[in-house]
Amino acid sequence: MTRAEAEALDRDDPLAPFRERFVIEGPVIYADGNSLGRLPQATIERLGSVVDTWGSRLVTAWPDWIDRPLEVGDLLADAVLGANAGEVLVCDSTTVNLFKLAAAALVHRPGALVTDADNFPTDRYVLEGLGELAVFDADPIDGPTADDVARACARRDVSVVCLSHVAYRSGALADVRAIVDVAHAAGALVLLDVSHSAGVAPVELEAEGVDLAVGCTYKYLNAGPGSPAFLYVREELQEELRSPIWGWFGQREQFAMGPAYDPVPGIGRFLAGTPPILGLAAVEVGAELVREAGIERLRRKSVALTELAISLHDERLAQLGFELGTPRDAERRSGHVSIRHADGWRICRALIERADVVPDFRTPDSIRLGLPPLYTRFVDAWDIVDRLALLVESGEHELVDAAPARVT
Amino acid sequence: MTRAEAEALDRDDPLAPFRERFVIEGPVIYADGNSLGRLPQATIERLGSVVDTWGSRLVTAWPDWIDRPLEVGDLLADAVLGANAGEVLVCDSTTVNLFKLAAAALVHRPGALVTDADNFPTDRYVLEGLGELAVFDADPIDGPTADDVARACARRDVSVVCLSHVAYRSGALADVRAIVDVAHAAGALVLLDVSHSAGVAPVELEAEGVDLAVGCTYKYLNAGPGSPAFLYVREELQEELRSPIWGWFGQREQFAMGPAYDPVPGIGRFLAGTPPILGLAAVEVGAELVREAGIERLRRKSVALTELAISLHDERLAQLGFELGTPRDAERRSGHVSIRHADGWRICRALIERADVVPDFRTPDSIRLGLPPLYTRFVDAWDIVDRLALLVESGEHELVDAAPARVT
Repeated sequence: MTRAEAEALDRDDPLAPFRERFVIEGPVIYADGNSLGRLPQATIERLGSVVDTWGSRLVTAWPDWIDRPLEVGDLLADAVLGANAGEVLVCDSTTVNLFKLAAAALVHRPGALVTDADNFPTDRYVLEGLGELAVFDADPIDGPTADDVARACARRDVSVVCLSHVAYRSGALADVRAIVDVAHAAGALVLLDVSHSAGVAPVELEAEGVDLAVGCTYKYLNAGPGSPAFLYVREELQEELRSPIWGWFGQREQFAMGPAYDPVPGIGRFLAGTPPILGLAAVEVGAELVREAGIERLRRKSVALTELAISLHDERLAQLGFELGTPRDAERRSGHVSIRHADGWRICRALIERADVVPDFRTPDSIRLGLPPLYTRFVDAWDIVDRLALLVESGEHELVDAAPARVT
Repeated sequence: MTRAEAEALDRDDPLAPFRERFVIEGPVIYADGNSLGRLPQATIERLGSVVDTWGSRLVTAWPDWIDRPLEVGDLLADAVLGANAGEVLVCDSTTVNLFKLAAAALVHRPGALVTDADNFPTDRYVLEGLGELAVFDADPIDGPTADDVARACARRDVSVVCLSHVAYRSGALADVRAIVDVAHAAGALVLLDVSHSAGVAPVELEAEGVDLAVGCTYKYLNAGPGSPAFLYVREELQEELRSPIWGWFGQREQFAMGPAYDPVPGIGRFLAGTPPILGLAAVEVGAELVREAGIERLRRKSVALTELAISLHDERLAQLGFELGTPRDAERRSGHVSIRHADGWRICRALIERADVVPDFRTPDSIRLGLPPLYTRFVDAWDIVDRLALLVESGEHELVDAAPARVT
């Protein structure tokens, strides 16, 4: 594959025009949209408009704002999550939402919390804080399987199986349907963290029988640093479950300010405090962009981008001490490619400091190359691998300070 | 008191120039800054700057963002809360923060949760969801007293006394020092919600011996709809208490992503998920404005504004069926004045629809006149009462639909 061939793929890419919908400055090739997505052009105006409304209408704008967590939730449900209207809320952080749903499930169906040792840290910590945790080891590249879950659910009462849709290190996409089947057979609910799949891979919460889900909006949904997260509760479960945080935004007739907590019957009961109106506007823009591009087209391009990166890895990086840290089967892969190298941390720093490529690093040895299809060109994927190869061939990465720094 | 006399007070007001630091459009007199504060001019630029940083620096800006909850917390601690550096975090919503601190206190010191029946709804609901709740009735105008708390703490083990610094309906300011004394004597911690005092009245968390506190930033701190809230944990308690939400932002060596939760020793352990960077910028601007004006000067003007409104109430409204719903002693009053009227809801609607005054209403009969000293003129207070009197004298409020609407 030559650079010219990659350029040809860009010319044929129906999603290519979406790149112009983002702010793109400077020479850097951004390969970390799986951590923090780019700024959509429309977000600048949308945020300005919310700020204007605040300034001019003040408290009288609240009737227009108060349903935003549900309205933007409905948009995500339809465009991104394969869920129904009234099943998704945009609120709080992923961590707080995971806490709310796992705690609710635990009361509803007491038992152990099952997760895998490689699940994203905040998910593991939240579960650890809630109750008895049964942690199984998953394959570091392929991620958790239905067999893993079946084994972990045997010999104990399980409340909820809580997994990430995408293994954050390797990018492996879990076989949700199979996992749901074994979890349900064991009498457990499934709580899925779709932070790394929402907006880049097909998420089919309803069709795959997922009970509960959470996710962030600052990766492939491009809603900005620390933007509000979302939560999903399958409709049949909404009245049975109750958030552990009994906040006034979940209260029936909220402004009667009655003496006792009496949660609304629907998804709204999972709201807690006053919703973040600025952040919600950014989530809306991000979800609208994904809706416009369409998850199917995004997925098709995403697979092509990761295929390209993997074949270039085999061609040019494997001989330099790299090893692929991502499933080769496109069906089992989300939007980023991990490549492992004993000197990975230093190579990652050198890419940023000396090659104008921004990937990220995950301990102990994974360089993650995020290739969000909304704004990543095929030629970007080509250039990333090319610069990586040139850097390591020349030994230039050895000039970089290897002291670990705080990274996100 | 004539309007000309009110104008003279404005000419002598050292804080008058701060009004220009806010966006003020249209003819409306805004009397609901106690619910949602105005938009500071500087916020527009500051938010723009954060958005620019997101767009241009992307994930590489995280080293500058990651400590924002603590940095803006330190600013609030010093300028607004009478707390020390390292005792305040800006994060999550008031509701979620109250949940975290009350749950932490309950584990640390098991017992009943004490609050008053008139405490703000979300606070009551959160406590109700956490454990055994001992609710006492406070005076509807003067709010909860130390005697009330002493009685409620007698005959039971108490974990935490959770009260609002300001009674949201009447505006009464609690005698925090006396309440802390009786709560501590009963072996309880004190968790204070300072949402209605932060930025307008003296809050002296350290000097008054408060153990834990939470508050919002969208009222007198002018940080916008649903802006992030804050929490305070007295330094000595930080290592003894643990948030119920074990999130990755509270983890020691967060990016080692280690197998078990091991919270940082300080206030940071009360962080949960990824902090809202946009919202934090708005909180910073709001806190800076309060610091520049100074809580003492703000308090002096706030007392003068509420005194003016009360004396005008006595002069012109008492004879129209109004009754003061706020303490007459300035020492026991925060930044808003409540006036009660049997037809209060309709009068409130009529003020908004027919008199270009925006107050708010709290069931069953209180019209709240918020007079934030950063941008409210003495002539505004005069005009509000004048328009109220003219409206009710003319009977014009009777033309308004009395059906209750959803208000905030």
